[in-house]
Amino acid sequence: MTPQEGTRPLEALSNILMIACSETDANIYYASRFLAPDPFIYLEVRGKSFLLMSDLEIDRARAQSKVDQVLPYSDYESQAKKQGIDAPSIADVVHLLMEAEGEPGPWLVPGNFSLAYGDALRERGHTLLIKEEPFFERRARKTEEEVASIRRSQIAIESALDQAVDILRRSEIKEGLLYLEGTLITSEFVRSRLHLDLMEAGYLGQHTIVSCGVDACDPHNEGSGPLRAHETIIFDIFPRSIESRYHADMTRTFVKGSAPDPIKRLYDTVLEGQLLGIEQVRRGAHGKAIHDSIVRLFEKRGYQTGLIDGRMQGFFHGTGHGIGLDIHEPPRISKRDAVLKAGEIVTVEPGLYYPKIGAVRIEDMVLVEENGCRNLTTYPKRLEIQ
Amino acid sequence: MTPQEGTRPLEALSNILMIACSETDANIYYASRFLAPDPFIYLEVRGKSFLLMSDLEIDRARAQSKVDQVLPYSDYESQAKKQGIDAPSIADVVHLLMEAEGEPGPWLVPGNFSLAYGDALRERGHTLLIKEEPFFERRARKTEEEVASIRRSQIAIESALDQAVDILRRSEIKEGLLYLEGTLITSEFVRSRLHLDLMEAGYLGQHTIVSCGVDACDPHNEGSGPLRAHETIIFDIFPRSIESRYHADMTRTFVKGSAPDPIKRLYDTVLEGQLLGIEQVRRGAHGKAIHDSIVRLFEKRGYQTGLIDGRMQGFFHGTGHGIGLDIHEPPRISKRDAVLKAGEIVTVEPGLYYPKIGAVRIEDMVLVEENGCRNLTTYPKRLEIQ
Repeated sequence: MTPQEGTRPLEALSNILMIACSETDANIYYASRFLAPDPFIYLEVRGKSFLLMSDLEIDRARAQSKVDQVLPYSDYESQAKKQGIDAPSIADVVHLLMEAEGEPGPWLVPGNFSLAYGDALRERGHTLLIKEEPFFERRARKTEEEVASIRRSQIAIESALDQAVDILRRSEIKEGLLYLEGTLITSEFVRSRLHLDLMEAGYLGQHTIVSCGVDACDPHNEGSGPLRAHETIIFDIFPRSIESRYHADMTRTFVKGSAPDPIKRLYDTVLEGQLLGIEQVRRGAHGKAIHDSIVRLFEKRGYQTGLIDGRMQGFFHGTGHGIGLDIHEPPRISKRDAVLKAGEIVTVEPGLYYPKIGAVRIEDMVLVEENGCRNLTTYPKRLEIQ
Repeated sequence: MTPQEGTRPLEALSNILMIACSETDANIYYASRFLAPDPFIYLEVRGKSFLLMSDLEIDRARAQSKVDQVLPYSDYESQAKKQGIDAPSIADVVHLLMEAEGEPGPWLVPGNFSLAYGDALRERGHTLLIKEEPFFERRARKTEEEVASIRRSQIAIESALDQAVDILRRSEIKEGLLYLEGTLITSEFVRSRLHLDLMEAGYLGQHTIVSCGVDACDPHNEGSGPLRAHETIIFDIFPRSIESRYHADMTRTFVKGSAPDPIKRLYDTVLEGQLLGIEQVRRGAHGKAIHDSIVRLFEKRGYQTGLIDGRMQGFFHGTGHGIGLDIHEPPRISKRDAVLKAGEIVTVEPGLYYPKIGAVRIEDMVLVEENGCRNLTTYPKRLEIQ
């Protein structure tokens, strides 16, 4: 997937408060390793971690989470009632726990902490300090186990893409469209096959891009309708492991049949830019410098970026993004600067988009190392599928 | 899925601001009908709706969203730079747009609005009013089209469950375990089949519960390991339609082989409670009254709720929850009161959980009507699979 946002400066960690749903919030999942479909409460006080859980979830939280202690929400709720609060709110209950811990604060909360809870806790006298992403700095630098999880997700992508490429290879071209054993091949058909293959392997694919021709010139257009010969087809696949919850992310661009020369030139230029990006990735490298060097290369090769005929054309997204429990996480490699650290895993995925020629994006995932990077992507890069 | 939380009082709508990722935030998706993997900005000013989109998403947003106008984020960012802000933040850019609209506010924001953006906008002089769920009151009362979408999701569940029940039916019992053509049947195997069947039909199943015996006494335990004969097996299936994004939700409890009498009695009691719940659902009914009546029935039948041998047993979750773009949305039918409105779709899903007997939960999804409700679930309720 192509990235979008920048990051903000860091602060030191101390006491932490999160109230979020771990199904959609990677920080609370990272800290608790507990998955639940409703919001729950996480506290870290002087290095000790707590969950405050409903009766419904408490036994499962005790068995599955990695926190030091799981406390029953209902106990604190009853205490609040004893103190004369008729229908204690979540903020009342959290306030009571904070008081019980004898910790004056301040409390670090993530930028996406709820304004409603924020206001309610400040009204009760607590100081909340917002820490922008990366909320947990160690989340960006992957452990060996996390690298292995992401590499496993990558293997699942490559295996699924192999099946999809095989469909293109075996298909026949009739009047510019593709047919497999008489069936018209569409974006939807190929995406559905990819999702089924991924799920059989234990991976959840969503919004996988199989996008052809002009459609693919919108980088997040998932693609629809018949795939066409002699036009570029972008595959951008970024599933989550159902077991580990770690993503991988890869993009390849193909043409079924022979590629016209303008497409070949576009492809070679994007590939040149991508390799230029990868060779600069190392500890201490500046994301902005990497991004700018690719922008300059594309311009030098004659590929301009900007509004043309009322739509954005050229290279109008970031070069890459961190990946892990979230598909997009810090650091970004883009016009907003970030300095790369050893252990981070980032994508390198420049693209060029011109409705009159086609769309090309090529994406690998690399592990930042001391003096370079290790490419976790092993899928070949070739344009034409005959 | 079993529900957890309560709701808070409502306020009237006026100007609205949301900054969220529509992939995980149903309100911004509901208002914009635009899906994107990164946060974006939604404004409603004097009845007119706007999106502020990055270069990467702007063309797709113009084609796919249902808002009145899609504005380029980069234009406002450039304007902010011209006003002397070196690296404009999202708050700087939103502030500029708010000023440009000449609207003094206050601005309604959802309870989960980010504290970081909230602080930054208040610093810039804006008044934000938090509106708790349901943020859009009309989101709770489903249109005919939404009812049809949810019913289609329900049909997909019933069809997938049919396949799973067929596996149980065809399996043989050997030493208390189940085998299909020589293969041991596990929770994981059945869940994987359900997810593949759902995906083939265009539905995304996650955390589907196929849970046997003591495991199922934790209502959100997804289940693992071999399924066993003569013990209860809970199926709780709540996928999302990939196309419409509307969920459905159904739970059934089965025993493969003959059910021991204590399980039969438990099942009959839960079913009695569920029917008692459904018959009370109508416009104006109080969720708390419905929930309490089921609690009382269970107690009358001798099934106590509370801590027994250090774990929660009995009926320790809510009776039901609203459903739609979110799997859990207002209203709840639980100990926190809510008055039902015509057009709401709610689940009715009491359960009883005793590790020494087994776990039973039965869940239908019903549409609240003027003088009763329409059951959108058509799957039969029977305990034993021979």
